[in-house]
Amino acid sequence: MKIYDWRLAPNPRRVRMYLAEKGIEVPYEEVGVPQELRLKPDYLAKHPEHAMVPMLELDDGTCIGEAMAICRYFEELHPDPPLMGTDARDKAIVDMWERRACEGMLSMSEALRNASPGFVDRSLPGYPDRPLKQIPGLIERGRARLGRFFSTFDGQLAKHRYVTGERFTVADITALCLVDFLGFAKVEVPEECRHLHRWHGEVVDRPSAQASR
Amino acid sequence: MKIYDWRLAPNPRRVRMYLAEKGIEVPYEEVGVPQELRLKPDYLAKHPEHAMVPMLELDDGTCIGEAMAICRYFEELHPDPPLMGTDARDKAIVDMWERRACEGMLSMSEALRNASPGFVDRSLPGYPDRPLKQIPGLIERGRARLGRFFSTFDGQLAKHRYVTGERFTVADITALCLVDFLGFAKVEVPEECRHLHRWHGEVVDRPSAQASR
Repeated sequence: MKIYDWRLAPNPRRVRMYLAEKGIEVPYEEVGVPQELRLKPDYLAKHPEHAMVPMLELDDGTCIGEAMAICRYFEELHPDPPLMGTDARDKAIVDMWERRACEGMLSMSEALRNASPGFVDRSLPGYPDRPLKQIPGLIERGRARLGRFFSTFDGQLAKHRYVTGERFTVADITALCLVDFLGFAKVEVPEECRHLHRWHGEVVDRPSAQASR
Repeated sequence: MKIYDWRLAPNPRRVRMYLAEKGIEVPYEEVGVPQELRLKPDYLAKHPEHAMVPMLELDDGTCIGEAMAICRYFEELHPDPPLMGTDARDKAIVDMWERRACEGMLSMSEALRNASPGFVDRSLPGYPDRPLKQIPGLIERGRARLGRFFSTFDGQLAKHRYVTGERFTVADITALCLVDFLGFAKVEVPEECRHLHRWHGEVVDRPSAQASR
């Protein structure tokens, strides 16, 4: 078993941080080209239809992409401590907030990829076989969507210690990996979002956040 | 308990079809404005930060948005027949393919919302409080992304009866709700995707597909 990883990118960090919370060790293979914003050609050639990381390769050769699908695999095998909810209501709430954090991640990616010279013809990740031109209008739209992320999560964190309540979950992991990456999109959490700042200051100090940087 | 629904839209249908597969009955409240491509103002006012459907409201007032989070709630309470996988590997694979089908849904939405006069200032769903201008470049990008959906799912369905294997799952539900909605984005499944056509012909005849139309 191994995980194809790209140390630089925000989505692989979600899995590294999740596994650090669980205390699970899995070998990683770095597939990012050093000093460049792209994956190695032989990795892309192996996964032409889903050319993204993270990717978990099981011993039988099965490849599982999508950060949360990988976490779900380990959550089933190692349920403690629970990071994806505990009963039906809680699991649904964690799933909902994790997806909302993903919406924030997509918004950041819109603002970043359509502005950076490093992503010409790659306005979305995962399509090495077809050019997807940068679209300048998405820079502004990505920032507007991030405004929604900030207000929604600040409101939620005004009521709760963590994103979904009093327990740390994968929704916190995705939100932290997004917030820590905002600088690359030249965006900051607004000063008035003081609950989001309070939460970030706490979560970024967790050993899993440090280990996955 | 009730589900806020919009009969016209593809995402609420994912939940209706899921519940029909399970044989679970939940009251629905239609919140679409008849003959218009928008939700009722009082629904939007109640959910300003997540102004989308489907939305499950529990008896304690908890609101759970996101189609798959709603399905997860019911899957925990009513595990048979399993529609989200059976063991760790299977659950991860279903999660991955369901998310890939969602990527297809987003692609269709890009091609539709940025072209239709019915969606001026609403290039994404769920942001009634801030205008998100239509971006013409996204029509072409959405179609390019759909090309990826067609080739990937056709390849998978060449190997398996259903999207994730020999068992019908939520990945089939999301993919069907997308394919049945493509006409609104003026896109068709390419003729050469014969495995996708074979699968569609089979799945669209399921009682759940008929009941959720």
